Amino acid sequence: MKFTVNRNLFLENLNNVMRAISSRATIPILSGIKLDLSEQELLLTGSDTDISIEIKIPVSEDLTVESTGSIVLPARFFSEIVKKLPGKDFSFEVKQSFQTQIISENSEFTINGLDANNYPRLPEIPDDSSFVISGKTFREIINETEFAVAIQESRLVLTGVHFTFSPDKIHAVATDSHRLASRVLALKNGPQTKTDLIIPGKSLQELSRIIGETDPKVKVCPGDSQVLFEIGNISFYSRLLEGSYPDTERLIPTESTTTVKFDLSELSSALDRASLLTHAGRNNVVNLTLDTEKQTAKLSGKSAEIGNVEEDVAFKDLEGKNLKISFNPDYLRDALRASVTDSVIMNFTQPLRPFTVNPDKDDVAFVQLITPVRTY
Amino acid sequence: MKFTVNRNLFLENLNNVMRAISSRATIPILSGIKLDLSEQELLLTGSDTDISIEIKIPVSEDLTVESTGSIVLPARFFSEIVKKLPGKDFSFEVKQSFQTQIISENSEFTINGLDANNYPRLPEIPDDSSFVISGKTFREIINETEFAVAIQESRLVLTGVHFTFSPDKIHAVATDSHRLASRVLALKNGPQTKTDLIIPGKSLQELSRIIGETDPKVKVCPGDSQVLFEIGNISFYSRLLEGSYPDTERLIPTESTTTVKFDLSELSSALDRASLLTHAGRNNVVNLTLDTEKQTAKLSGKSAEIGNVEEDVAFKDLEGKNLKISFNPDYLRDALRASVTDSVIMNFTQPLRPFTVNPDKDDVAFVQLITPVRTY
Repeated sequence: MKFTVNRNLFLENLNNVMRAISSRATIPILSGIKLDLSEQELLLTGSDTDISIEIKIPVSEDLTVESTGSIVLPARFFSEIVKKLPGKDFSFEVKQSFQTQIISENSEFTINGLDANNYPRLPEIPDDSSFVISGKTFREIINETEFAVAIQESRLVLTGVHFTFSPDKIHAVATDSHRLASRVLALKNGPQTKTDLIIPGKSLQELSRIIGETDPKVKVCPGDSQVLFEIGNISFYSRLLEGSYPDTERLIPTESTTTVKFDLSELSSALDRASLLTHAGRNNVVNLTLDTEKQTAKLSGKSAEIGNVEEDVAFKDLEGKNLKISFNPDYLRDALRASVTDSVIMNFTQPLRPFTVNPDKDDVAFVQLITPVRTY
Repeated sequence: MKFTVNRNLFLENLNNVMRAISSRATIPILSGIKLDLSEQELLLTGSDTDISIEIKIPVSEDLTVESTGSIVLPARFFSEIVKKLPGKDFSFEVKQSFQTQIISENSEFTINGLDANNYPRLPEIPDDSSFVISGKTFREIINETEFAVAIQESRLVLTGVHFTFSPDKIHAVATDSHRLASRVLALKNGPQTKTDLIIPGKSLQELSRIIGETDPKVKVCPGDSQVLFEIGNISFYSRLLEGSYPDTERLIPTESTTTVKFDLSELSSALDRASLLTHAGRNNVVNLTLDTEKQTAKLSGKSAEIGNVEEDVAFKDLEGKNLKISFNPDYLRDALRASVTDSVIMNFTQPLRPFTVNPDKDDVAFVQLITPVRTY
C-alpha cells in the first residue's frame, strides 16, 4: 500500500472520520482508523460501535496511488501527525509487519499499524427503502429536539429521538420524562411508507455537525438495527434503539387556564439571573408567580447559603387564573434556546400539571412540555 | 452602607480583584470579597494569603455614596450576579444582619454577607525603599523567566523568580534545577541600593496579567515578608520567598565545543513533531544529532508503542565537534517560546553537560540553560 496525497484534503476528511473515534474505546482496534486503498479511491473508516463513519476520497491529481492495500493506524496520533506535517503533500507507505512510513519534506514518521483484516465490518444496509431529505431541515429538527433526550440509560429508548418520516413531513420527539420536545417540519419527497426510527442522541449530535451549516442532500437508508446516512462522500452509520417509544401525544395538554406571552430575550435574561443562586444549592428550582389581576409576572430563586433573587419579568400578554408554579430552570432555559420565534407563549393548567412552551406563530408546529416540581 | 455605581466600571475593577480569589480558599472568609466604602472611595479587597489585591474606586458621578460602611460578600456569586444584572447602574445596600440588597432595574438580589471586621488586614509596607519601573519591562522579564520556576515545592525558594534590581538594570533568574532562564534588562531610575527579591511564580503570573499590554508605571515597595506593587488604582501584594537563592551564574558554561544556529520557527516545528511521539510514552526524551562534517542536524523521538520520527532540521550555521545529546523536548519548547530573536544559537560542550540557548543578537542578555538526560 503506497500513496501520495494533498495534506489539507486528507486532513479535512480525516477530521470527519475522527468524530466516530471514542477516546475510551473498549475494543483496542477501534482506537484506530482504517485506511483502505483501491485503484479508484481511498476509504477512511472510524467507529465506536454506536457510530461508524466511512469517507471516500477518489483518486485524483491530489491522491495518487502507487500500490493498493489496507492498514489500521492509531487514530489520535495519526491525526496529530498529519496535522503537524510540514509539507503540502505527504507520502504514505506500509512496509513490513504493518510498519507505516509517512514522509513529508524533511520529516519522517514510522508508525506501528495493525492488520486491517481484524477491523470489524460495517453492516450492509439495502437501498430499497431509502429516501433523500434536506440537510438543513434535518439539522434543524435535530437541534430542536436532541437536547431533551434522557442522559441516564435506565430507560434506553428515551436516550434517543423518535423520528417519524412521512411523504410530506418529519415528526421528531424527545423526552427524558421531565421535559419533552415535539417538532414537525415539512418534507419534500419523504418516504412513501411511514418510517419510524429511534436514533441515539449522541449519534444525532455528531450527524448534525457533519451536516454542517450548508444544505447538503442527506440520503436516509433505514436498516434493521442500524441506519445509514449518506452525505456527499460520507457514509454515517448509527445504531438504532430497539423497543417501542411511548405515546407522547396524549401527554400534551390541549387546554389551558393561564396564558402568558414573553419576549424571548427578556425571559432568558431573567431566568439566567434567577437560576444563578438555585444552581448553588441542592434544590435547583425557581418559582414563577403570575398575577393576572395585578398584571405581574415574578420569577424568584433562592439558596439557603447565598441568598435570594426576585425578578419582575416584563411580558407582552397575560391572561387567565392566577398561578404559582415551581420548576427546574434548566429545562426552561433549554426550551428557550431551542425556540424558533422571538416571543414564546407559555400555557398552564394547574401548579402540579405540566406546562407548555410554544412558538408565537400559529403555523410552527413545535411544542415543548415541562413538568413542574412539587415544593411543599 | 449604601451606594449606586456604574455596572461596567464596577465590574472591570471587580474582575481584577477576583484574580486574588482562590477557588479552594482554606480560610472561609477569603472566598469572599471585601467592600469598604468611605466618603472618598470604595475599596475592593481580595486575597488568597499568597496574593492580595486592593482596588480603589474614587467617588465620582459613576459612584455616589449614600452612607459609608463595609461588608464581605461571596466573591464568585457576587461577580456572577454583577455580570448578569440588567441595567447600566445598580444600587447596593447593606441591611440587617449583613444581608445585602443589590437592585438593578427589575432585578433584586439579597445576598448573605459576612462581618468585614473578621477580614484579615493587609500588611503595612513602608514607602521608604520604593522605586518606579516600566510595566512593559517588568512584564517582559516576568514572561521570559517565570515559566522556568519549580512546580514542586521540595525546595521552596525555586518556586519563585529571583530578582535583583540595581540603579540601571533588573536581573531575573528562575530554575527548577533541570533548566534555567536568566535575563537582564536595562532600567531607568532603578533603586539606589541593590534590591533582592524572590517572588513566587504564581504571583508573577497574575501580576503580569494585571500589568496588561500597555506600559503603566509600576511602583515597587519591598517589605520584610511581602512586596507591594502599585499600578494605577491597584495595590498588588505578594508574599516573598525567604531563604537564599542558589548562585546560578557559575552554572552557565562560558565555553563551547559545538555551536549551531537555528531559525526559531524551523526548530520549533521540528521539535513539535519529534515530541508528538515522546509525549505518548513514559520516556519524554528527544535526541539531537549534530554532524559537523556532513553538515546535518537530526532530531528524533520514539515511543515503543506508537513508532518513531526523524526530522532533518534545516540550520543556518553549524560548527565544532560532532555531538549526540538527549533532552526533554518540553524544556527546549519553553525556551524557544521565550526567545526574543528570530534565530537562536545553541552552545554545547559534552553530551551530559548542560547546554545553552542564546539569542542571535550580542546585546541581548538572555541565557537559557537545559540539562540533558542520560539515555544509556
